[in-house]
Amino acid sequence: MDEKIAKQVLEDVSGAVGLEEGTEGIRKILRFVCRFEPVPLHDLSRAVMIPVPVVSAVRRELEKRNIYSRKSGIVLTQKGKMLLQAIGIYSSKLPELKLEYSAPEWLGPVAKQFRSIQELRPAPDFTLDQSHVDSETSALRSAYLYEHDALGGRDLIFMGDDDLTSLAVCLLSSEYDLNIGTITVVDVDTRILRFISKSARRIGVEVNTIECDLRQGLPRNLAGRYDVFFTDPPYTINGLRLFASCGVQALRPISGRPVFLSFGSKSPNETIEAYKVISDNGLAVQEVIPAFNRYVGNQLHAGASNMIRCSTTDTFKSVTPSETEFIYTASQKKGTD
Amino acid sequence: MDEKIAKQVLEDVSGAVGLEEGTEGIRKILRFVCRFEPVPLHDLSRAVMIPVPVVSAVRRELEKRNIYSRKSGIVLTQKGKMLLQAIGIYSSKLPELKLEYSAPEWLGPVAKQFRSIQELRPAPDFTLDQSHVDSETSALRSAYLYEHDALGGRDLIFMGDDDLTSLAVCLLSSEYDLNIGTITVVDVDTRILRFISKSARRIGVEVNTIECDLRQGLPRNLAGRYDVFFTDPPYTINGLRLFASCGVQALRPISGRPVFLSFGSKSPNETIEAYKVISDNGLAVQEVIPAFNRYVGNQLHAGASNMIRCSTTDTFKSVTPSETEFIYTASQKKGTD
Repeated sequence: MDEKIAKQVLEDVSGAVGLEEGTEGIRKILRFVCRFEPVPLHDLSRAVMIPVPVVSAVRRELEKRNIYSRKSGIVLTQKGKMLLQAIGIYSSKLPELKLEYSAPEWLGPVAKQFRSIQELRPAPDFTLDQSHVDSETSALRSAYLYEHDALGGRDLIFMGDDDLTSLAVCLLSSEYDLNIGTITVVDVDTRILRFISKSARRIGVEVNTIECDLRQGLPRNLAGRYDVFFTDPPYTINGLRLFASCGVQALRPISGRPVFLSFGSKSPNETIEAYKVISDNGLAVQEVIPAFNRYVGNQLHAGASNMIRCSTTDTFKSVTPSETEFIYTASQKKGTD
Repeated sequence: MDEKIAKQVLEDVSGAVGLEEGTEGIRKILRFVCRFEPVPLHDLSRAVMIPVPVVSAVRRELEKRNIYSRKSGIVLTQKGKMLLQAIGIYSSKLPELKLEYSAPEWLGPVAKQFRSIQELRPAPDFTLDQSHVDSETSALRSAYLYEHDALGGRDLIFMGDDDLTSLAVCLLSSEYDLNIGTITVVDVDTRILRFISKSARRIGVEVNTIECDLRQGLPRNLAGRYDVFFTDPPYTINGLRLFASCGVQALRPISGRPVFLSFGSKSPNETIEAYKVISDNGLAVQEVIPAFNRYVGNQLHAGASNMIRCSTTDTFKSVTPSETEFIYTASQKKGTD
């Protein structure tokens, strides 16, 4: 196949789906199947970090053009292989180069206890973009917080916690006898707060829970009182802006403190926006781990999101967001709140 | 020990050394020793990502105060342990939580050949901030480029390449029969260019080498002609700005293409600057891997630097730097060029 024709196919498919990631997004979706076929749809979505319904639409277009077919997963047709070769992509013997955590066995007990505790958790409220991470992610988060000195002697605040990460931290602390300062959870959902408070007491750790809708701003008495904040904010840029800004306001103005933001992959243009929000709040990026967070049954995030670890700086400021109305996906779609 | 007294010690040591990272930097240096003592100075520097001479000065201050002592590496004294407990840090049984590459055995042949080829490389020119990565890093970079679709069918440009990463790419390509578009290397040092050109021919791959001082701007005929760029720029923010801007100018204006920046850890305030440079050039951060790049005998970077993988966007622009004079550390220090 001619390279020009192949590139035109990528253009056409991208156009037909209206893919924000453009032809490079189509190329990514094709290349992953070329390397690892047969590929289940959900694995493909997670690998390319594009939501399942979007990848599914791309698959439909590629099947229509006889490039993809199905055989216990997505595979390339002969025509598909020729198309990829025309743009320089050959199937190769090279295995995936993956970053993985080396020693998470010692996290086993934490993950196991977490799994059993969370069985009675409140059902997700999708209007609040609730969609929680799996138990392994919760346990890994607690270890990651420990690794980056967010626990020992620290006053820790969670800006929203339907993931129950605070409980994983309680379990790690009780399992390994850590010496956390204080743990505070702010959430708009009283069901979550009650559940966390009750479960923490059972673990033998005190968690302060505070009901609060951050769209009204951070309660005055919480400002400047914490060392570290953790948030997995609503999926929108406005959501990130609001939660990051409230988080920064809650911290004591000291440089070099760790801050943890979980945020899904966005199109390249929206990603620039997200990092602008981070800098604007005086946060310095230290590490970005794609697909660190795995969600249960969440298709919006492609089932995974990035862990963005930052550090506070001297240029400590929080940008008060001007648009706090449309922070949740649902309200954004409806244009109402 | 009282918490206030302990915190005052951190303040004093930070002040005595003039540590940009402040008390949190001191805390980091103390905590790592607490977890993994005895710790060699160079390991400590790499772990906290603060240059060796600076960590050494901190050690001196801590020894003076009877907090650190030496015993086949840095260890805490009894007083040191009490100080750490006062700020909430206890030694713990928890092993390090490390991200590691899962399957780099297949990179063995590339690393081995690279090691032998590079033996005759030109000696580093320190006035140009040359200080190359080790052979394992070079091999890993080539695999990382492959993993993120920077090779197959791509026209690839290296903005400076005293690391000889282009040669590792040639080796990977020849070992695994990849189908790279074209490989171009721009450098100010003709010794490097001659060495790359000659070695690549011996591997059986063509590399275009172009002598050019980017401080004069990117040569017109290179603009808009490439798909992917890779750079490990001079260590200053101005260096990053210049090399990133030239890299972006060299690319075809297509969204979603991979871009690779290696850049050392800076203080939180300078880190914000670095990410502002990245956004200003229309690049969207995709992944940040601390200490991905390991350098041979380099103390300036703490022997390691971050891999920052970005994506091009629609808001494609390159910011022409206003200050291109002081891009190298040496010229910055001397204030001359």
